[in-house]
Amino acid sequence: MRLFDKVAIVGTGLIGGSLALDIKKKGLAREIFGVSRHKNTLLLAKKSGAIDKGSQHLSIIQDADLVVLATPVNTILNLADIISKFISQECIVTDVGSTKQEIVSQLSKIFPNYVGSHPLAGSEKRGIKNAYPGMFEDSLCILTPTRNTNPKALRKIKILWNQLGAKVINLEPDTHDRILSFVSHLPHALAFSLIDIIPSRYLKFGANSLKDITRISVSDSQLWADIFLSNPKNIVRAIELFQKNLSRIKSAINKKNKKILVKILEDAKSKREILG
Amino acid sequence: MRLFDKVAIVGTGLIGGSLALDIKKKGLAREIFGVSRHKNTLLLAKKSGAIDKGSQHLSIIQDADLVVLATPVNTILNLADIISKFISQECIVTDVGSTKQEIVSQLSKIFPNYVGSHPLAGSEKRGIKNAYPGMFEDSLCILTPTRNTNPKALRKIKILWNQLGAKVINLEPDTHDRILSFVSHLPHALAFSLIDIIPSRYLKFGANSLKDITRISVSDSQLWADIFLSNPKNIVRAIELFQKNLSRIKSAINKKNKKILVKILEDAKSKREILG
Repeated sequence: MRLFDKVAIVGTGLIGGSLALDIKKKGLAREIFGVSRHKNTLLLAKKSGAIDKGSQHLSIIQDADLVVLATPVNTILNLADIISKFISQECIVTDVGSTKQEIVSQLSKIFPNYVGSHPLAGSEKRGIKNAYPGMFEDSLCILTPTRNTNPKALRKIKILWNQLGAKVINLEPDTHDRILSFVSHLPHALAFSLIDIIPSRYLKFGANSLKDITRISVSDSQLWADIFLSNPKNIVRAIELFQKNLSRIKSAINKKNKKILVKILEDAKSKREILG
Repeated sequence: MRLFDKVAIVGTGLIGGSLALDIKKKGLAREIFGVSRHKNTLLLAKKSGAIDKGSQHLSIIQDADLVVLATPVNTILNLADIISKFISQECIVTDVGSTKQEIVSQLSKIFPNYVGSHPLAGSEKRGIKNAYPGMFEDSLCILTPTRNTNPKALRKIKILWNQLGAKVINLEPDTHDRILSFVSHLPHALAFSLIDIIPSRYLKFGANSLKDITRISVSDSQLWADIFLSNPKNIVRAIELFQKNLSRIKSAINKKNKKILVKILEDAKSKREILG
């Protein structure tokens, strides 16, 4: 099912590369072009069959009818103006950024056919070498249309994600950022903070529980610093709520109050079981 | 290689059951007896071949030359006196409790041949139904001898864990509890606290990162309340250190200081990479 003629992926890393592999595999576009700062990334993307042609220069995106911005949040914001000079007014533009308020607010002004996307997929790994087809199968993709979003563009972007196997949910950009601060940004902040305070000489005593809880702390530092700085209010509020809640456990331990401790732990357990 | 004649496992759950399966499989004892409060656990333990005979009454442990206490921390402390009435002075006693100061201090007074063990194995699952042979293969087991520990008993317990595939390290009980408060107890407190503050309606947006970081929050509540209450000072100090460190991220976000954020995240990443 061909949805687009020429798709340009700006940032052919883990997400952009996996997206390209799937668009290619499912025949959703006639051709796919990739843009990356790194020549080697483009070579790998081409070799893996993700893209038909790659370039380090944005001029390659002209004539595209879909541009996907799959770079870190900050780069999305920095590139938007330049990108707008290369594409037509009709070109649909989406991004896969992990925060949405700032991006949607700015990109909506620049691109007439912009739709914000956030596929809840990927991992702590990065780069085209870790990209794989099927990444979005059975995942959730959040779209963040506003009242000014072109309904036709929204519909096409929804079909795109559905074709890639994702269930699509629409959220207001600010609702998206509030939810993600709890289910993704705060957990990352905790993982970074936890591994940071463990004395190095204790690490050899870390079993699977420590490995699991800190796995995401190897996520890309630049990318995550950008995410934190593009959703500051929500993340700071989530951190403060968390600190207060952690103090409840601390206080119950200090007071040797087993009843309250068991209650807190039971509640946590029941809620975690919903996650599956 | 027969190390013991009659081994009694008090608490044939995840750890006790797996231990029994391995002792049986490797022929380290002539016979293995199991004690549990639950009849069904004993039936399952017998059926799986972990134990030769099971009972809900402690009297079954008499004549054992090794008793392994594999119940939650609090139960270990509560049962010690009664157990001492059933066994000989020569019987070696060990436990698999997750905290050691309190247990070692009390059990050393009660049993002449006591050696504290803490195998760093297992998972958030529990019960004999999740027990499996090979659990301790390539794991680490901490022994916590004191200057009063009988060297012969220590040697036999070390051989036992080695035979089960574990690497053995000796630590002072207080060193053990300090290290474990960082690499295990604090991570559990964080997982419980995190899942607790996430509004239930947000959970469907939780991806793999949230699942991994909160996986251990389904751990048994009674067991973990006991662990927290038997290592209070170390855990409270670890929580406080963590809260301060998390505030560094909060402060860097508030100050929009990307340089410091990236530094914190880079440090975390480098340290996590040591864990493998």
